[in-house]
Amino acid sequence: MPEIHAHRRGALATLLHENGVDALLVTDLLNIRYLTGFTGSNAALLLHSGGDAKTVFCTDGRYTTQSESEVPDLERVLDRASARALASRAAGEPATYGRTGFESQHVSVEDHETLKVRFDKVHLIRTPGLVEQLRLVKDDVEVAALRAACAAADRALADLLEAGGVRPGRAELEVARDLENRMLEHGSGGPAFATIVAAGPNSAIPHHQPTGAELRTGDFVKFDFGATVDGYHSDMTRTFVLGAPADWQWEIYDVVYRAQEAGIEAVLPGAEVSEVDAEARSVIDDAGYAEQFTHGLGHGVGLEVHEAPSLAATGVGTLSAGMAVTVEPGVYLAGRGGVRIEDTLVVRDSGPELLTLSTKDLVAV
Amino acid sequence: MPEIHAHRRGALATLLHENGVDALLVTDLLNIRYLTGFTGSNAALLLHSGGDAKTVFCTDGRYTTQSESEVPDLERVLDRASARALASRAAGEPATYGRTGFESQHVSVEDHETLKVRFDKVHLIRTPGLVEQLRLVKDDVEVAALRAACAAADRALADLLEAGGVRPGRAELEVARDLENRMLEHGSGGPAFATIVAAGPNSAIPHHQPTGAELRTGDFVKFDFGATVDGYHSDMTRTFVLGAPADWQWEIYDVVYRAQEAGIEAVLPGAEVSEVDAEARSVIDDAGYAEQFTHGLGHGVGLEVHEAPSLAATGVGTLSAGMAVTVEPGVYLAGRGGVRIEDTLVVRDSGPELLTLSTKDLVAV
Repeated sequence: MPEIHAHRRGALATLLHENGVDALLVTDLLNIRYLTGFTGSNAALLLHSGGDAKTVFCTDGRYTTQSESEVPDLERVLDRASARALASRAAGEPATYGRTGFESQHVSVEDHETLKVRFDKVHLIRTPGLVEQLRLVKDDVEVAALRAACAAADRALADLLEAGGVRPGRAELEVARDLENRMLEHGSGGPAFATIVAAGPNSAIPHHQPTGAELRTGDFVKFDFGATVDGYHSDMTRTFVLGAPADWQWEIYDVVYRAQEAGIEAVLPGAEVSEVDAEARSVIDDAGYAEQFTHGLGHGVGLEVHEAPSLAATGVGTLSAGMAVTVEPGVYLAGRGGVRIEDTLVVRDSGPELLTLSTKDLVAV
Repeated sequence: MPEIHAHRRGALATLLHENGVDALLVTDLLNIRYLTGFTGSNAALLLHSGGDAKTVFCTDGRYTTQSESEVPDLERVLDRASARALASRAAGEPATYGRTGFESQHVSVEDHETLKVRFDKVHLIRTPGLVEQLRLVKDDVEVAALRAACAAADRALADLLEAGGVRPGRAELEVARDLENRMLEHGSGGPAFATIVAAGPNSAIPHHQPTGAELRTGDFVKFDFGATVDGYHSDMTRTFVLGAPADWQWEIYDVVYRAQEAGIEAVLPGAEVSEVDAEARSVIDDAGYAEQFTHGLGHGVGLEVHEAPSLAATGVGTLSAGMAVTVEPGVYLAGRGGVRIEDTLVVRDSGPELLTLSTKDLVAV
């Protein structure tokens, strides 16, 4: 889809004008993928505010064929030292690239020293986060990929439950592997992150990594997992009880469920991110579990599984239509068990669009 | 194993003395793991040349329990902004941390700006690659982990072959997933990198990613894959023919086999890395396939699957006993098929110690 990448480059060109630079040296591979569609492991992009005619893409010889098909619409240079090659190019045309920005939140101090020499008389200017600013709001192509990733995760979990894969005696690790394989069957390119399956007391550890511990009747089992499609990540958490839940399990599940509902309802264009966190958090606070909800409410999701915005008490900024975020409150009782419920959703003017649709029944098994 | 980490920190302290700095702010997570054993996703370490008494480790509240057990032997601070917290600590004791190095090949320009302010009157000095210098030569604990990772890969491939998993009609993706699951069964913590299974013409693409393409009788099938144990990576490539090889297949297989043999023989303490590359490459050149061997001969392997040294024509430096490297020549005939054979091995005074031991029979299936 060369059109969508050209469109994104156009939006970036506008940002470059606003920031008073002629061009941007893009070195972060995810940002390059966003702007060009290139999926290889080495590339740089010198994007000019004047448009594609002055924009140059660079990768190395391993990606000759791949870059021809993925990036058919830009001038291409082949060089192993991709950023340096483009720096030399800019240095040769100081009238065109006189003030060039660079991704100072990604470029290391050592690489910057090297680039400064290469750019010679061209002014190299710190311009952190410009492409990330665009990536905050997802376009239709991105939402379609997120939707497909969320669907792969939903279907994998449904299959796992239907096949009786969540049963007493199975090890956390075995269940996690089963779930990951089922995501692959439904079109995932690989897990979005290391799948969490946490049984019994382990469910009280927010980011528990699966072990040989076995699932047992009466225990919580918490799943936090995601798929990837075209580089976009899904992120979902579900917590179940095997068999009949005890009163304390119903209680904290109900609190987290209601907190999540309140958080989702607060996800609207214009909402302060800290306010969304507060809406969900107040439900948990009121129930007396403030100390047991030890993390932020959610985060942006896209080409990275954790990206801006941060939906947390310390977060700054407001939501806009088209942002994709998670809402994932939790209550963790050390030594006993914990509950987290998480969805991935898109901010819409008409109210949030849920992308993860799996059952939230506590007794789904 | 706190002793081994203390020993590594001692070696780094010596390097700090040699480089004229009082301390090093370590921010790269792999370097922190190497020096402390910590495996979490957020940490920083302020390592003083005077020893552990003045060394401070920082992580955040998510890792309270984990860091107590993994890093029992160092003073610990809990703070989400781990590097900044240690910078403030150093700024408060300028007599102790007066000249502090930082990992300038990892720290971004933006983070450096923030750190400079925090470090206040402490001189912050660019000291790239100090921990990486130590990591070049593996200690016994590291070699044991590499050996275990290589064994998991060997066993998984043997199982796959024995179970008839490499057969005509199976898709590359299916075989790759099967192989990855078998590595998990043999103790791998996860694939060392995205497993390559490349059938027929796809085997001519050095870094082909598995697709729905089916394995066919008479075709090459190339496997490039690895396991991880305790964070250490194995890396091995094998190429087979399903059924009876054609003459051209025997021919290039023989060339690559002999090139690999020559490369392995050249892996000795004191050897120039470019010379090792040349030993293998000359076999391929002499056979007339110089243009079809399009990459370097090998690379270091450890906490990263690709790390120093680079065994390539452009590589600089010599091998030392205890380095772990790969030797992986290849010949790729576009549109027809390609062969690569790769082992992971440790440089020893008595000659290289092979860690990957799988069969190199062309007709193993």
